[in-house]
Amino acid sequence: MTDFAGAVAAAERRVRAHARETPIEPSPALAAGSGASVFLKCENLQHTGSFKARGALNKVLSLSPEELARGVVTASTGNHGAAVGFALRSVGARATVFVPEGASPTKLAAIARQGGEIRRHGADSGETEIFARAHAEATGAVWISPYNDPLVIGGQGTTGVELLRQVPDLDAVFVSLGGGGLIGGIGAWLKAHAPATRVIACSPVNSAVMMRSVEAGRILTLDSLPTLSDGTAGGVEPGSITFDLVRAVVDEHVAVGEDEIAAAMRDTMEAHHMMVEGAAGVAVAGFRRQAARWSGARVAIVLCGANVSLSTLKSILP
Amino acid sequence: MTDFAGAVAAAERRVRAHARETPIEPSPALAAGSGASVFLKCENLQHTGSFKARGALNKVLSLSPEELARGVVTASTGNHGAAVGFALRSVGARATVFVPEGASPTKLAAIARQGGEIRRHGADSGETEIFARAHAEATGAVWISPYNDPLVIGGQGTTGVELLRQVPDLDAVFVSLGGGGLIGGIGAWLKAHAPATRVIACSPVNSAVMMRSVEAGRILTLDSLPTLSDGTAGGVEPGSITFDLVRAVVDEHVAVGEDEIAAAMRDTMEAHHMMVEGAAGVAVAGFRRQAARWSGARVAIVLCGANVSLSTLKSILP
Repeated sequence: MTDFAGAVAAAERRVRAHARETPIEPSPALAAGSGASVFLKCENLQHTGSFKARGALNKVLSLSPEELARGVVTASTGNHGAAVGFALRSVGARATVFVPEGASPTKLAAIARQGGEIRRHGADSGETEIFARAHAEATGAVWISPYNDPLVIGGQGTTGVELLRQVPDLDAVFVSLGGGGLIGGIGAWLKAHAPATRVIACSPVNSAVMMRSVEAGRILTLDSLPTLSDGTAGGVEPGSITFDLVRAVVDEHVAVGEDEIAAAMRDTMEAHHMMVEGAAGVAVAGFRRQAARWSGARVAIVLCGANVSLSTLKSILP
Repeated sequence: MTDFAGAVAAAERRVRAHARETPIEPSPALAAGSGASVFLKCENLQHTGSFKARGALNKVLSLSPEELARGVVTASTGNHGAAVGFALRSVGARATVFVPEGASPTKLAAIARQGGEIRRHGADSGETEIFARAHAEATGAVWISPYNDPLVIGGQGTTGVELLRQVPDLDAVFVSLGGGGLIGGIGAWLKAHAPATRVIACSPVNSAVMMRSVEAGRILTLDSLPTLSDGTAGGVEPGSITFDLVRAVVDEHVAVGEDEIAAAMRDTMEAHHMMVEGAAGVAVAGFRRQAARWSGARVAIVLCGANVSLSTLKSILP
């Protein structure tokens, strides 16, 4: 297997000047009653409002001038699209971001604000991605996967480098799980440098494809139900390198329901006055499921992003 | 008059290790159509979710061990109470925060989370403050005013020190105006170190006591209507040192309506995925009133805080 801890170390050198070292917020409020010391790693305050900026930066900063000149393509309606737009802009270039025909104007605006050039194609994100990859191959452009790329995973892992520096002696880290790029990168770093820290993957019950795949021992194709955690939702790419990585670095899995996610988002926003997206709520809810067990322990929860639409926000407010 | 720029410089040395240097976010979204380059100074990301932590820290770090031992008292249901609690905790002590009998549980929880010891007295904030000050005097405790104190004003001014370092050559800075501590501190620093930058005070029409007082040439006692900007609302203390300071450092005033404040909050939250309170919306709305005039200019807007309740948040969402 790829030396992912090494990939994280290389990423740390590469992105340090471009990514934010995001703050840690102690959270007595979310610890309430558990007896744990809870620390929030605030990737919601990362550039573009999500940890995805780290992986995109690491990938883009690895490209040669020739590669950049051939163009960079991705497909995304969410955080990854904005992150790739941001990363390209930071090297003075422009990303082409393919989106489905019906993508929401709010999300397109976020991509456009980061400098991404939007191209519409396809009825859903699967169809869009197939077309975008074909376009990249046909034109010789560089394709940036949201998670199936050691450079992207290495970049996301820099979250773990900071976390370990900011809060040593952690007993557990709760991270939401989608394609596995974030927890794969963080987990690879922790297993190498803080092996006593348990790495706990949190998935929404409504879309837990990687978790179910790990249980089954192979990548499954599963339908997903709608979830507040749009940042982690959807299928896992066949053959993704994150599958073996997640199996290697995740110590346990927890799945949470939509009501738990909504309550976690509400309580985090109320106590910390920071906007958090559904995928961040998943990690908070995952900790809450196990809270009693972590009495006396030091626990980090990664708030992976802030990108919640105002309509979704309204829907979860009391 | 006190050397307020000197007070800011002293505060900068004193609080640097304790206050966050908050990030700057360029905001093409809020600049839309104006042709201005807009930079948001994110005090919503300061400890306690508000710039108030700066002033409280500067005051508390100035106290002798003897003064600390006599106790520290303030009156507040909002950001100042949480900030004083936070500042005291950071020196290993505890603040006594007096609140009105009917203060909202959400706000009390925020104060308690920061370590403040809550004491209930009085039917409204005026009555509470009179009692709390008398209590401080009777017990020999230190009283911390929310704005009528050179050390508090100096601390708030460190926002301006960072701003000038982060975004040089600003043509204008928009800051919300309540008691005048924040704009007084920032303005004192800018007048001394960047005199070409226009300092523009933004008030809600529904509660613009300092603005009307400046117009009248004396501190007025005026009733206020309800406003989303609870952080700036209310009267100005008779004899407050901020009155002459605001007159000296504010170049112009703008007053904005509740609909403008709500729209500014919504648009800021949608584009930047950060929670902002009404008082921050006031500064954004103030810029928008004048946007056309600042075409081609470099403009900063101070997002003074994040502390909006979920019910207020829900009330302004579309």
